[in-house]
Amino acid sequence: MDDLRKAIFETRRSIRSFEPRQISNVDLHEMLEAAQLAASAMNEQAWFFTVIQKEEVIQELALLATGIEEAPYYNAPTVIACFAADDAIAPVEDCTLAIANMMYAAVLNDLGTCWIHSTKEVFNNPKYAKLKKACGVPDGYTCIGSLAVGYPRNESPKPESRKQNVFSIIR
Amino acid sequence: MDDLRKAIFETRRSIRSFEPRQISNVDLHEMLEAAQLAASAMNEQAWFFTVIQKEEVIQELALLATGIEEAPYYNAPTVIACFAADDAIAPVEDCTLAIANMMYAAVLNDLGTCWIHSTKEVFNNPKYAKLKKACGVPDGYTCIGSLAVGYPRNESPKPESRKQNVFSIIR
Repeated sequence: MDDLRKAIFETRRSIRSFEPRQISNVDLHEMLEAAQLAASAMNEQAWFFTVIQKEEVIQELALLATGIEEAPYYNAPTVIACFAADDAIAPVEDCTLAIANMMYAAVLNDLGTCWIHSTKEVFNNPKYAKLKKACGVPDGYTCIGSLAVGYPRNESPKPESRKQNVFSIIR
Repeated sequence: MDDLRKAIFETRRSIRSFEPRQISNVDLHEMLEAAQLAASAMNEQAWFFTVIQKEEVIQELALLATGIEEAPYYNAPTVIACFAADDAIAPVEDCTLAIANMMYAAVLNDLGTCWIHSTKEVFNNPKYAKLKKACGVPDGYTCIGSLAVGYPRNESPKPESRKQNVFSIIR
């Protein structure tokens, strides 16, 4: 594997500071196409993605998730929430594989992402069913995770140290 | 994103036919390094990977998983099982992100992989605790998933059709 390709794994960092400008439509659609190409159990592809770029909706989500407007999305211009059908065979695995593809499609377009867990608490709370519907999510889908997405602002974080002794080899 | 880079998402397919020759140590270690660079909740990195290359152990796993020696690993020369600490914050998400990194590190070295779910049933069955220990897995870890890995044999499958209408955009 050449260095350029190896860099993809090191270049992907969790970005927590974004420029205000919106990501381009081309970059967005490359992320979504990549998501659709992820593996899934029995090739079910039982996922759904809502891309939120309307500032007021991101702020509403943030306030419901944490009570703080700037958290948890770090003022990212785009939030992509990922849902799995309630009867999916492997909902968390499949959505995570799709999200991983989006993380790398982002890196390849010089975008930054950060996995945000707390979006689940909002979209999976029956109290906020209207918001979920207003975001275009079909009935019978559960939120698995989400990504804050944008152009990193002055951020090129180096990876934190990697835990050692995390594998065994049986030959 | 240039075409070469875009290809990575299309090139990754689930491979179900492998050459018998073992993957190189260099390729293996590039996969493991990539796995360690995955994101994880609170950067816990609460994962563990056992790399099984001993044919008898793969066959034993296969027989316990399905009763059939050739399934579910398709005679792959390497099986990598991924475990998460029982107290991990996001065990399935984190292990899946690590496995995704391994899938792409494999693709970048012209290897093929296939996600195999049934390994979990073996390693998480208390009846087979001795096998789990013999594979070097520490106590207090649960199997989340696994990959069959090898050089694809005459396989360059095209992607199955992609489900449409899987996203909404809120602007």
